[in-house]
Amino acid sequence: MSPPESKVDVLVIGAGPAGLFAAHGLARAGVSVKIVDQRPCRVAAGQADGIQPRTIEVLQSYGLAERLLREANQMHMAAFYNPSADGGIERTGRAPDVTATTARWPFEATLHQGAIEALFMDPMREMGLEVDRPTVPTALELSEDEELLKDPQSYPVKVTVKHLDHADAQNDTEVVHAKFVLGADGAHSWVRKILGVTLDGEQTVYPVIDYIWGVVDIIPSSDFPDIRNKTAIHSPNGSCMIIPREGDKIRLYIQLSEKDVEKDIQTGRVDKSKVGPQQLMEVAKKIFKPFNIDYVGEIDWWTIYVIGQRVASQFSVKERVFIAGDACHTHSPKAGQGMNASMNDSHNLVWKLTHVLRGNAEMSLLKTYEFERRKYAQDLIDFDKQWSALFSGKPRTEDNQDGVAHEDFLKAFQTFGAFSSGIGVHYAPSAITNYTHQSLSPNQLIGTRILPHVFIRAADARPYEIQDLLPSDTKFKILVFAGNTTKPEQWKRVDNLAKEISTGEHGFLQIYNRDLFDVWTISSGKKEVVDYTDIPEILRPHWSHVLLDDTDMYARTGGGGYERYGIDPERGAVVVVRPDGYVGIVAPLEGVKGIQEYLSVFLKKSSS
Amino acid sequence: MSPPESKVDVLVIGAGPAGLFAAHGLARAGVSVKIVDQRPCRVAAGQADGIQPRTIEVLQSYGLAERLLREANQMHMAAFYNPSADGGIERTGRAPDVTATTARWPFEATLHQGAIEALFMDPMREMGLEVDRPTVPTALELSEDEELLKDPQSYPVKVTVKHLDHADAQNDTEVVHAKFVLGADGAHSWVRKILGVTLDGEQTVYPVIDYIWGVVDIIPSSDFPDIRNKTAIHSPNGSCMIIPREGDKIRLYIQLSEKDVEKDIQTGRVDKSKVGPQQLMEVAKKIFKPFNIDYVGEIDWWTIYVIGQRVASQFSVKERVFIAGDACHTHSPKAGQGMNASMNDSHNLVWKLTHVLRGNAEMSLLKTYEFERRKYAQDLIDFDKQWSALFSGKPRTEDNQDGVAHEDFLKAFQTFGAFSSGIGVHYAPSAITNYTHQSLSPNQLIGTRILPHVFIRAADARPYEIQDLLPSDTKFKILVFAGNTTKPEQWKRVDNLAKEISTGEHGFLQIYNRDLFDVWTISSGKKEVVDYTDIPEILRPHWSHVLLDDTDMYARTGGGGYERYGIDPERGAVVVVRPDGYVGIVAPLEGVKGIQEYLSVFLKKSSS
Repeated sequence: MSPPESKVDVLVIGAGPAGLFAAHGLARAGVSVKIVDQRPCRVAAGQADGIQPRTIEVLQSYGLAERLLREANQMHMAAFYNPSADGGIERTGRAPDVTATTARWPFEATLHQGAIEALFMDPMREMGLEVDRPTVPTALELSEDEELLKDPQSYPVKVTVKHLDHADAQNDTEVVHAKFVLGADGAHSWVRKILGVTLDGEQTVYPVIDYIWGVVDIIPSSDFPDIRNKTAIHSPNGSCMIIPREGDKIRLYIQLSEKDVEKDIQTGRVDKSKVGPQQLMEVAKKIFKPFNIDYVGEIDWWTIYVIGQRVASQFSVKERVFIAGDACHTHSPKAGQGMNASMNDSHNLVWKLTHVLRGNAEMSLLKTYEFERRKYAQDLIDFDKQWSALFSGKPRTEDNQDGVAHEDFLKAFQTFGAFSSGIGVHYAPSAITNYTHQSLSPNQLIGTRILPHVFIRAADARPYEIQDLLPSDTKFKILVFAGNTTKPEQWKRVDNLAKEISTGEHGFLQIYNRDLFDVWTISSGKKEVVDYTDIPEILRPHWSHVLLDDTDMYARTGGGGYERYGIDPERGAVVVVRPDGYVGIVAPLEGVKGIQEYLSVFLKKSSS
Repeated sequence: MSPPESKVDVLVIGAGPAGLFAAHGLARAGVSVKIVDQRPCRVAAGQADGIQPRTIEVLQSYGLAERLLREANQMHMAAFYNPSADGGIERTGRAPDVTATTARWPFEATLHQGAIEALFMDPMREMGLEVDRPTVPTALELSEDEELLKDPQSYPVKVTVKHLDHADAQNDTEVVHAKFVLGADGAHSWVRKILGVTLDGEQTVYPVIDYIWGVVDIIPSSDFPDIRNKTAIHSPNGSCMIIPREGDKIRLYIQLSEKDVEKDIQTGRVDKSKVGPQQLMEVAKKIFKPFNIDYVGEIDWWTIYVIGQRVASQFSVKERVFIAGDACHTHSPKAGQGMNASMNDSHNLVWKLTHVLRGNAEMSLLKTYEFERRKYAQDLIDFDKQWSALFSGKPRTEDNQDGVAHEDFLKAFQTFGAFSSGIGVHYAPSAITNYTHQSLSPNQLIGTRILPHVFIRAADARPYEIQDLLPSDTKFKILVFAGNTTKPEQWKRVDNLAKEISTGEHGFLQIYNRDLFDVWTISSGKKEVVDYTDIPEILRPHWSHVLLDDTDMYARTGGGGYERYGIDPERGAVVVVRPDGYVGIVAPLEGVKGIQEYLSVFLKKSSS
């Protein structure tokens, strides 16, 4: 009897943060998705837990940040402790935890991975999509027929999966024919291995015993005054990082020394079976002296890890099978990057897959996934190596002048801030990122996410964060910074723009599927005098789509938007925001031809 | 066969905004409640729809504002139109719709009454409480046994109710024995009538035909530039007010003249059966000239009303049967007060009933309901009379120098702002409002709601709006503004306060049920140096209960709190916030005796 067969647009293998993010995003866009995972249920405790500022913005763009922020802890303050003269530790200083000043939410959110996974699974369930589990893939075949591979509507990938809890062992396999497959199956990715994709880089060289860390999740009992801050302790007895968590919980990352762990004499590797959470707490107590650290109740979760830093040599095979998340890059957990990098891989891929599947975009668009995300992963590894070395290094003291000085540590902390927050991600020029007119918006870098800023809606003076008006709904957002429309000559430029984008040889609103675009107009005029009805109708498809660069009624928020982006408040500019919230191209009001040429590289003309 | 009998702590008659607010609040506090309503289902369209800034704060204190703000429209801007030289209208100016600058949400929210009712009914359902409908009361008996009336645990009220849709007409009545009854059954209140409570005031004198208004809810088709603002039009053809609503809807209040309506010659009253929505739109079209106003689709809802302004002579009978909302006060809808006054009546009553029922408070506490809310209702009527006259008056023109000048209208609009927003509500001295030490917090008036302000949590530098830390959970909030605790002599004062409130003859934390109080400490120290662990433990029952008067890490919010309240940042003060969010008493750090005396008037000592 042959196994049952099924067809799906995208098969996602792995239901961790990367896989769930992709499945949720694709399902939300109306793509047919199947997602399988080998675990029988979602993560209950521990694992990844840090959500960086940019990731909060991204989750918000899918309507998921409200719940995250309701459930998560927030880390605003970082504290630094170093050896004191009497052999204990003392606070050297406090500083903002997030140094990326443009972050809309200038803090890290912490919440256990299971709750993060629920953020996606609950709305997925409402859309009728459940994770098929416990289910593992057992075979994957990718067609070599080039014609088939060129057709986005073909099913060139055949994956055999096995349902592990099937009562009928005879009938526990299923053959899935997929247009695309995403391997989001973690650091030991089965998909990566079966594709023969190798990892560059290697695990940190042994036997640098300093680079072995223990992790415990506890509810602390302590007189340590920074127990609710993100605290980096460099003590004479090793380093420790405190990550406060939801409720009263905290996580401790505890550096282990040779004294603390047993090594296998042959391999130099730590014997994890001989270390337990009590032993980790004993090490923590030494590091914390003269402060007390203990816990109440049970230890929620614990682990021991060795830092490994690697990047996959490629992120896709023929743009038909992709890998994302830990399957493509692994690094140390202390910088709080893992879950963020994973989800942002999927965020980058979802809209591209969606438009290819809808017939709106060329297959070539998919090549930009590896281009953009592999570069990012390599930068991440470089950052992580430097950061880990600083953090694991011995502190500088009287007796150890080669140790890490607090000033160097703090400087690195602040320098790396833009990167580690995710805010600094800057995609290089490519088919979807055109730097030509960067000078028109010097403060809004092309290839970075649209800067958060509050504008006032012209029709009713209601303040809106612009990021909230540009959700991850797969549309390109055409932001017409119309300049000073109260001047007749500028109004004429704007009226010409309206005609050019909607008619004629560069009229991209009609050349491509109209649903691909969402048009917004932002005037530099003031709320007391501007009438939204003065804006040409093409540029205000709804009364709500005219914004002003002004404050709200009591100047509590808003204003200075043109300046923030560096756009001339008299003459304006057009900013095209990609569906993932990153700026794709900037053009002058007369630059419609350039925008059309940009779009023509990866979009297909509307058949209608 | 005698009808079934039941017992309940509080029977609420009427499930409009006042009744639902009370039933929700009581159920949330664990009080047993029954609520009946004569309507077979909740309001589907029209009716009241304006939520004032203070009401948003109150809803937030019950955790209900988030949903309201997600669903509602916001009115930030008001616009004013007056006669133009050519016989039409023109804009005279725009101004903030809300003039109460301390409002946490400085706008009015608009949402149809049915959605407001759902705000309460959905969480009520989760608590197992449904509105019993369609059900009407048919008899009410209040015991005259003084002993019984003194005992809060007795059931002195017997109400017979009839279930209107009962299949078995023989068995359609029920006798409810209640400890307390709340009549929230509207302007034609059955409860008020059966109690023999009269209304003071009278309907606006006829035949002032100007005071007849029509109302239509439409989706407009219009070139009027302020169609999404709260707009007051004084035209040569009558007055009109635009209230933008959720989605694309708006409401028009349209002044009707003698030409527009037919009057009954005998009574001078309008024959409502001879006016329809089309006729109202025809009047609106004349008022809007030279702008167009029409609608798309159907007219959602419409009505005609005559302004009536009345206050009930008493708000309770023997503090056992209360009335709230329209049952005690009616006024014109254009000032957007009705639903707000109603809900705030219930807000005032809920915590008092709860503590009497729990045995924490004396029966006398209930007298403060009428004291506080009847005074407010009278002020509301006074405001409404002046406002209605200004709004219904003819505009001042060349030919009519006695008409209402725009400057007078605007001035009244701004002067009345504090009152109409609900922010200015200021309860007079009483058993629960003690003005003695007003000089310690000159900007935080005793008897007004605690001013919203952002403080920083000491343990983790996370900013919190203080109103969110003081929910309507029936507790008294003891806010210890501890001053500059880094100075030893001030720390000593704070330490003494901690001892005094928890031990000895004034130690109210132990004299009364400990659960009545929630203690917060607010230091004037800065986040870089204050350790929450330095505050005496009595004053920090949890690590989260120590706040700082400082900005967040990027100075986007917070700071200046002592100044905002007018409290000395060196020496501090204790602010006691009532369970409804209004300040009850302020005292110096050495004033624990005074606080204990204040509490002793209405609280019962703990039996334990």
